Amino acid sequence: MCAKAKTPDIEEIKTVLLQMGEKARMVSRRLAVMSSHDKNRCLTAMAEALEKEAPAILKANAKDIKAAVAKGLAPAMVDRLKLDETRLKKIAAAVRELCALEDPVGKILSVVIRPNGLKIEKVSVPIGVIGIIYEARPNVTVDAASLCLKAGNAVILRGGSEAFHSNTALVHCINRAAVSSGLPDGAIQLIPWTEREAVNVMLKMNQFIDLIMPRGGESLIRAVVEQSNIPVIKHYKGVCHIYVDESADKKNALAIIKNAKCQRPGVCNALETLLINKKIAAKFAPELAKMLKKESVEMRGDSKFKKLVKEASLASEEDWYEEYLSLILSIKIVDDVEEAVNHINKYGSGHSDSILTADQSNAEYFMNNVDSAAVYVNASTRFTDGGEFGMGAEIGISTDKLHARGPMGLVELTSYKYKVYGNGQIRS
Amino acid sequence: MCAKAKTPDIEEIKTVLLQMGEKARMVSRRLAVMSSHDKNRCLTAMAEALEKEAPAILKANAKDIKAAVAKGLAPAMVDRLKLDETRLKKIAAAVRELCALEDPVGKILSVVIRPNGLKIEKVSVPIGVIGIIYEARPNVTVDAASLCLKAGNAVILRGGSEAFHSNTALVHCINRAAVSSGLPDGAIQLIPWTEREAVNVMLKMNQFIDLIMPRGGESLIRAVVEQSNIPVIKHYKGVCHIYVDESADKKNALAIIKNAKCQRPGVCNALETLLINKKIAAKFAPELAKMLKKESVEMRGDSKFKKLVKEASLASEEDWYEEYLSLILSIKIVDDVEEAVNHINKYGSGHSDSILTADQSNAEYFMNNVDSAAVYVNASTRFTDGGEFGMGAEIGISTDKLHARGPMGLVELTSYKYKVYGNGQIRS
Repeated sequence: MCAKAKTPDIEEIKTVLLQMGEKARMVSRRLAVMSSHDKNRCLTAMAEALEKEAPAILKANAKDIKAAVAKGLAPAMVDRLKLDETRLKKIAAAVRELCALEDPVGKILSVVIRPNGLKIEKVSVPIGVIGIIYEARPNVTVDAASLCLKAGNAVILRGGSEAFHSNTALVHCINRAAVSSGLPDGAIQLIPWTEREAVNVMLKMNQFIDLIMPRGGESLIRAVVEQSNIPVIKHYKGVCHIYVDESADKKNALAIIKNAKCQRPGVCNALETLLINKKIAAKFAPELAKMLKKESVEMRGDSKFKKLVKEASLASEEDWYEEYLSLILSIKIVDDVEEAVNHINKYGSGHSDSILTADQSNAEYFMNNVDSAAVYVNASTRFTDGGEFGMGAEIGISTDKLHARGPMGLVELTSYKYKVYGNGQIRS
Repeated sequence: MCAKAKTPDIEEIKTVLLQMGEKARMVSRRLAVMSSHDKNRCLTAMAEALEKEAPAILKANAKDIKAAVAKGLAPAMVDRLKLDETRLKKIAAAVRELCALEDPVGKILSVVIRPNGLKIEKVSVPIGVIGIIYEARPNVTVDAASLCLKAGNAVILRGGSEAFHSNTALVHCINRAAVSSGLPDGAIQLIPWTEREAVNVMLKMNQFIDLIMPRGGESLIRAVVEQSNIPVIKHYKGVCHIYVDESADKKNALAIIKNAKCQRPGVCNALETLLINKKIAAKFAPELAKMLKKESVEMRGDSKFKKLVKEASLASEEDWYEEYLSLILSIKIVDDVEEAVNHINKYGSGHSDSILTADQSNAEYFMNNVDSAAVYVNASTRFTDGGEFGMGAEIGISTDKLHARGPMGLVELTSYKYKVYGNGQIRS
């Protein structure tokens, strides 16, 4: 890795980034034909090195933490930035677990034999070079690098500036271990600058980078989408809804709402807006309010809900679009499943939405008409997750519809090619 | 459709386009749940109307042709623009053929039942709203609209200015027929201006458009990629290669090269660069030159080929990147399959490349290492085509790796969602 230049100019950034991109492209061709066995050997070496070299990594991390505290970074952000022995062990364990997962590359997805005798195989291949732009979470550095490697992709990482020393140490560590186990040098690269210009240059390198995945807040993602000439898969906010239908089992409903809102409110698959059928609202609202108060959840209701629950404040139009990521819940009384669906399609973010009902036809209507990555009946939205979906590992949750939607695991980090076998065929 | 405004200002364009986008988004939700039967009824009505209303369409087309000729448009472009009874019948027939194809929407792609009892179905759904930007080829108007409809997508069309009257008449015709057969109004919309500003506004409407597909020349595609905030699938140039390996059957090789280069030189899967193994070059080159001369193909060779075939001119560095789309062939002598692969990965466009060989291991090396949408052994590159691949219909050939690669049929015009069936599951 390059050392961090103190005051790089834009030309220097461009030159180095183009070299990094070209290297990644070259190396990606070798990664594409690397055997599962060889990739797993590199992953194992990476996991071991993370544990062995913990002192050096934690020392670099301490530098970042010190600077973050001095800068007055919010405690929650400092906590995300922080590494310790236990967290490092967890990161290493996740890398090791990848070895056991099936290699997504080289699968024959379909075969046809055409009347002219041509055999056409559709075969999974790596995407090529993936750029990951993320915030100050050093665990993403290793997660992203190891997932990309297992799927045969080269990766160019650009982490948040607050984690710069941690990321540099982590990439140095895993790279040295992997390269000495046979990984081509250049498969895992970290952009050696924290300047924003570096991102802008990166986002124009469509000759070398096949896919950009931004992981972070709304403003980061918007900026990436606006700047990028490279395909982007967005992992955007989760304004998740639960609709309590007339026929819902009330006890189940309360348990599911509590789980979806309270179990881990800071994540993208947590509940943000609750919709309640008007026919059960009068009876259900007080029970709900009692549970939410006990869980310290702030209620922001529409005028109908406010009439039933005095403690609720009045939700504004903006509230319906809001991803609170905290113990706040917006609540609306709706006429029927149709109004619920329309509300979700208007205000939601296409992430995860659930209907609680005993009515099969309402459930099907909801699931067919809500335009989201994951639609549920009688379950918590919190299950939208690569692990919970059985993918084994996850690089994020796509709120896009192109290429990958919902949880993205190893398979979603691949593309395909057609291999066509002939014996002299020409087109007439 | 709106009538073409004479001098719209940018605010007017924005207002109308946003309305069109919002309408398309609304309508796309209804299209997503439309039955195959209902979609096919609309397609049939469209095909019938195209034939019945031929006089009005041809009259509009005559206006475009007259203007194009007056403007001095190249004869080949005027020909592409031209409609007549026969061509309209072919367009209508293609729409009818779509009815027989399997509906790509609503397919269960996978099902898992998780240990907690959740049933997770991955189901194909339409992408939503697709924007097509294309040049002055009125047939694309109907092709794109009908393919998008069959896959349950709303479409916003922006055709080349030279075809404006033809496109307006075509969309008017198919829309009226489809709407009176039950298609929601707004499923097929044509941008009513030829101003470039309209494209720029369209490319920023990511709240309403899910995918942009540019169809046309390199400069159009580059401009779209640079401007767009919406995911783009590129149908870029085809710099296709054939590598003649040491062990190739010479007679087959000549037939395949002739087919790939000469059968239809103006298309993206035609041969542009030929690579010949040095061990057979001295013997093969004269036979090749004889065939190519007979077919009036201009040869641009590297210095080694020029030594063998005096009539060849010397290829420049630019020649290796060139998509001639005409009877010109660049030819290079290479040491082995490895040099051939490296040349293709450097200069190619990732479209279609073929190895002619009797050597199984060279064939596999070529197919695994050439990073293109379609890789062939012992066949012409001309087969990269939705029809030839058995997809039935094709909206284009993607040279991208995200979402779709190679020929794009109906399946590639869909996304998926996860339907999760529970009975009270909460996450622990």
